[in-house]
Amino acid sequence: MIKPTIPKGTRDFSPEIVRRRNYIFQIIRTVFEKYGFQPLETPAMEDMSTLTGKYGEEGDKLMFRILDNGDIIEKAKQAKDNKELSSLLCGKALRYDLTIPFARYVVMHQNEIAFPFKRYQIQPVWRADRPQKGRYREFYQCDADIVGSDSLINETELLSIYDQVFSSLGIKGFELRVNNRKILSGLAEMIGRPELLTDITIAIDKLDKIGLEGVKNELEERGLDKISIEKIEKFLNIQGGGEEKLAQLQALLHDSVTAQKGMEELKEVLFSGNIPLQVKPRLDQTLARGLNYYTGIIIEAKAPAAVKIGSIGGGGRYDDLTGLFGLSGISGVGISFGVDRIYDVLEELNLFPDVVQQSTQVLFLQMDKESLPIIFPLLQKLRENNIASEVYPDQVKFDKQMKYANKRSIPFVAIIGESERAENAVSLKNMQSGKQEKIPMENMLNHLKAQL
Amino acid sequence: MIKPTIPKGTRDFSPEIVRRRNYIFQIIRTVFEKYGFQPLETPAMEDMSTLTGKYGEEGDKLMFRILDNGDIIEKAKQAKDNKELSSLLCGKALRYDLTIPFARYVVMHQNEIAFPFKRYQIQPVWRADRPQKGRYREFYQCDADIVGSDSLINETELLSIYDQVFSSLGIKGFELRVNNRKILSGLAEMIGRPELLTDITIAIDKLDKIGLEGVKNELEERGLDKISIEKIEKFLNIQGGGEEKLAQLQALLHDSVTAQKGMEELKEVLFSGNIPLQVKPRLDQTLARGLNYYTGIIIEAKAPAAVKIGSIGGGGRYDDLTGLFGLSGISGVGISFGVDRIYDVLEELNLFPDVVQQSTQVLFLQMDKESLPIIFPLLQKLRENNIASEVYPDQVKFDKQMKYANKRSIPFVAIIGESERAENAVSLKNMQSGKQEKIPMENMLNHLKAQL
Repeated sequence: MIKPTIPKGTRDFSPEIVRRRNYIFQIIRTVFEKYGFQPLETPAMEDMSTLTGKYGEEGDKLMFRILDNGDIIEKAKQAKDNKELSSLLCGKALRYDLTIPFARYVVMHQNEIAFPFKRYQIQPVWRADRPQKGRYREFYQCDADIVGSDSLINETELLSIYDQVFSSLGIKGFELRVNNRKILSGLAEMIGRPELLTDITIAIDKLDKIGLEGVKNELEERGLDKISIEKIEKFLNIQGGGEEKLAQLQALLHDSVTAQKGMEELKEVLFSGNIPLQVKPRLDQTLARGLNYYTGIIIEAKAPAAVKIGSIGGGGRYDDLTGLFGLSGISGVGISFGVDRIYDVLEELNLFPDVVQQSTQVLFLQMDKESLPIIFPLLQKLRENNIASEVYPDQVKFDKQMKYANKRSIPFVAIIGESERAENAVSLKNMQSGKQEKIPMENMLNHLKAQL
Repeated sequence: MIKPTIPKGTRDFSPEIVRRRNYIFQIIRTVFEKYGFQPLETPAMEDMSTLTGKYGEEGDKLMFRILDNGDIIEKAKQAKDNKELSSLLCGKALRYDLTIPFARYVVMHQNEIAFPFKRYQIQPVWRADRPQKGRYREFYQCDADIVGSDSLINETELLSIYDQVFSSLGIKGFELRVNNRKILSGLAEMIGRPELLTDITIAIDKLDKIGLEGVKNELEERGLDKISIEKIEKFLNIQGGGEEKLAQLQALLHDSVTAQKGMEELKEVLFSGNIPLQVKPRLDQTLARGLNYYTGIIIEAKAPAAVKIGSIGGGGRYDDLTGLFGLSGISGVGISFGVDRIYDVLEELNLFPDVVQQSTQVLFLQMDKESLPIIFPLLQKLRENNIASEVYPDQVKFDKQMKYANKRSIPFVAIIGESERAENAVSLKNMQSGKQEKIPMENMLNHLKAQL
């Protein structure tokens, strides 16, 4: 018999972990709904035609493809290489993110949807990335997007959602950083290499990881000359408060109409004072966010510096996402929460409330068969009053039953034996204090209510 | 541009549908937890070694396999047929049910688990079945199982869970039917063909669909002689109340020790009177439940006869499930809810409460830029009081904004224009009654609270 295993990079979530994860999901979901976002769910698999070419070469490589049924061996014979083979044998693949399926949904249902459409989606995605600490092949994404509105109010609302969620989770010292892709476009224009916008973006995106020298090296490798790199360095080195930074960017990029537009947008989002945020977003012109479909404001949420976890969320505006599926002129803006990292932050800062782990509150021990007709109606009464409770199903040794109560962290154990039956009473043991009292059966519910 | 599609047999769930589905999940989850069951989640993919051979030939055929990465073309060349090709190219497949992954989990974590282990699991599974009305290639299963206890109290508790869930959903007239595989084993013994138990079970399982004559034909095709078929017919024709039926079964199967044991178990579950159920389970000796790993009590929940939807749940006991993965002697018993069918029942009987569709309660129209600094703090105040609200993000025509409110079924529209600003007031329109009133801004929250 082979020892059972699970696929590399995937995880089983034990009850303790599911409860903690649901605590996070529930807070995010509640905030999304308070802001008027509606839930959407799409299938785990998408047709290859929906996915191919949407995530770059890397994405095509990391997609989990589903083998077709039917006569595949004949098809396999026609293939000349691995890529052709996989495209001949697989018509579907697992969802790689939630944004492309969302765009696909909007296009398919454009006539039923009330625009602007504010939807949220909390579902797993799959990527055949090399597994490592904090990186999995199956993980949840947690997105809120608005399509069909150009208004910057949407950006403001999304920043406010970050603020609300992280505050509700009790995270202190998180940061919200904001930039605009139009400023990066302006930078590429200014150095006369607009066609290298993606290269510049990708290099700048690594600043936190590889430092300024690293970025400069990468820019050189990507074909930028010394003068351009110097200009980019100057851009990256701009310091100060938001208004100061804007002034310096204005001076540096005054020739670019695109950059000016970007700064206007930032000004409106950062300084209109529309939303009373608990944490003020910071302008960070070095924020790039690798994914290349963003065209406007970009946002990043960072964990408190002390925990060294980095980004816990991000998003931005993309001008023409549904254009990929034939519906053009519809602008979208969205954010995403990195649930696995948020989990680590809460764990490290000890922010999960104890109540999250609450499951069974009362365990009735099974002392003898005779007590069962008394126990079942009591169980029902407790459950009707939302007190999760159970009876130990087997009539085994007292110690074994107590061990179960301990291992499950059940706070109260109820014992009904011969002497309790005679007195119409129940012995209730508080597992934390160790205190045991015999109380009249009819007082059990109120007694528990007072202590839980 | 090709019109986007989704894979055959899969579904997008629009916000309205997600809300209704979550209403069902939430009720089931709440009941599971009140009964002391704990949440578990396993990965969407499992290693082929975990899945192969667990679901019969049919299952192997209907599994969605995941193409491996790497040099598949070389491997493909070695394959002689479709089956070999798929097993050479795919080391993983999508989850086919929740029971096998659960058994795999129990074996892998046997040293951490507090037995008896009561877990519930609500996750999608995938099967490449031919799609048809009510049958999908991606659908949720919703299971509760107990492993590590032989006690029939578990069966009683599971019946009680059905009772609670369906009652909480407002379904009247549902039925709970109970049988025991040991009785069917006894039947096979009695006719001297114990090796045909599976064939007999599969044939009897079709009674509802193909009728008695159909079952008899199928039994003949499966190699049973006339005398045996007559005996089975006599068995199937047993009528009456539970105790009467038991008496007749006793008479018919008196030679089979197995059948006697089965009847003892049924008696304890059905007539011990331990749980005050709202709906009394009925003994149905014709209940077979196709899946062949059951060895004890089997359970089926049926929708009210009027809706013609049939089974909405089922389960049973399996004596040695984890034995498949090398951990033997551990008994399990579980039930499952058919969420898609329950959805149809609620839809047909109009049982979804209106409150399920509640999303945004208040829409602030955007009349002019000047009102935004007033609207945002009001928005925040409402949200802090759990009133979902939003502001229309774009300053477009009044009619367009009102149309959005209508399409979204938002009950209140708030208007703040020049005159309202002058009076420090807000005009609040009740979208259902059509009534509009101008109220002082500071009264808005209480005014809404009184009406929502």
